[in-house]
Amino acid sequence: MPRPTLEFWYEFASTYSYLSAMRIDDAAGRAGVAVVWRPFLLGPILGAQGLSDSPFNLYPVKGRYMWRDMEREAAALRLPFCRPKPFPQNSLLAARVALVGLDRGWTPDFSRAVFAAEFGKGRSIGDPATLAEILASLGENPDAVLAEAGTEANKARLRRAGEEALSRGVFGAPTFFAEDGEMFWGNDRLEQALAWAVERARCSQWPV
Amino acid sequence: MPRPTLEFWYEFASTYSYLSAMRIDDAAGRAGVAVVWRPFLLGPILGAQGLSDSPFNLYPVKGRYMWRDMEREAAALRLPFCRPKPFPQNSLLAARVALVGLDRGWTPDFSRAVFAAEFGKGRSIGDPATLAEILASLGENPDAVLAEAGTEANKARLRRAGEEALSRGVFGAPTFFAEDGEMFWGNDRLEQALAWAVERARCSQWPV
Repeated sequence: MPRPTLEFWYEFASTYSYLSAMRIDDAAGRAGVAVVWRPFLLGPILGAQGLSDSPFNLYPVKGRYMWRDMEREAAALRLPFCRPKPFPQNSLLAARVALVGLDRGWTPDFSRAVFAAEFGKGRSIGDPATLAEILASLGENPDAVLAEAGTEANKARLRRAGEEALSRGVFGAPTFFAEDGEMFWGNDRLEQALAWAVERARCSQWPV
Repeated sequence: MPRPTLEFWYEFASTYSYLSAMRIDDAAGRAGVAVVWRPFLLGPILGAQGLSDSPFNLYPVKGRYMWRDMEREAAALRLPFCRPKPFPQNSLLAARVALVGLDRGWTPDFSRAVFAAEFGKGRSIGDPATLAEILASLGENPDAVLAEAGTEANKARLRRAGEEALSRGVFGAPTFFAEDGEMFWGNDRLEQALAWAVERARCSQWPV
């Protein structure tokens, strides 16, 4: 059976992306699924829907519930949880850096470390020093990586990722895509997304 | 141990309320929890957030995904699923009727039948004939119940339910409340809400 894959589209400022990022590799490993990490920016996607800020800020009653739900969900997953201030954090630089790592294999480790700093410790991920520290801890050269993150080519790559997300119907984060294009939204759907990916790969064994 | 209770706030036009309505009594029964059915209207609540229509209509990209998610969720629960036209359905009369049944014990059966007609068969629940047919099938007198549903006292009761929902932080449906006031939103949180209700009742055994 070919190894199934699942695309994991995540936004560094997104609370529920944190929950998925911290558990997806374990969950996918148990399911025999390979994860394709796809960092992107949710801001332009929300903007295309006419939303000028996080829905959790625009609808404060819903936002208040979200923070309580995150406390419960993080506790159930044994994950530390802090409320970042401000929310949402500026995730532009982190997303650019994460793209640089895709070709070199450190994007999952970098992304987990960014989420852990932001939501586990309440640190500012918009601060280049935070990202530099994380890069150094991964054995990377912070100055070189941050410079590469800021090149026009890399900025354009992030914009293209956003356009791809928009064209594929992404409206929030995290979002998962199976190979047949089936889309699942939200940390609550990770298990179903993995099961779908496995089932579709199983069926593709049959000659067509 | 005192029997724990869980309030189930639901809106007849809400897709995910359908999923919860059809399974909550079984799930609560297994957990040993008593369910308090609380019909209400979501429209005024959304209006208080500045939303003039269902978010699934206001944000069509999200709406498109919701219909696909509902197909999958209904299939997983072995529930038939039709997309009502128009969506959302006018749920005012159904909610008024459901309130009448609260004192007489038929609200759960009536509510399940309304949801099954609407989302299982695609029938119009704004049509009094649909509700009359359901009431007759329950052995009630449709004319008498519909007349009672339209009294000023009953209309005021529904408005009060909406005011209570708003004051307790409800922003969507379904919503569940444990006895200690803990709120859970969405069909995906039903199991956690039941577990919370059980755990809190267990703790209340201790002398204080």
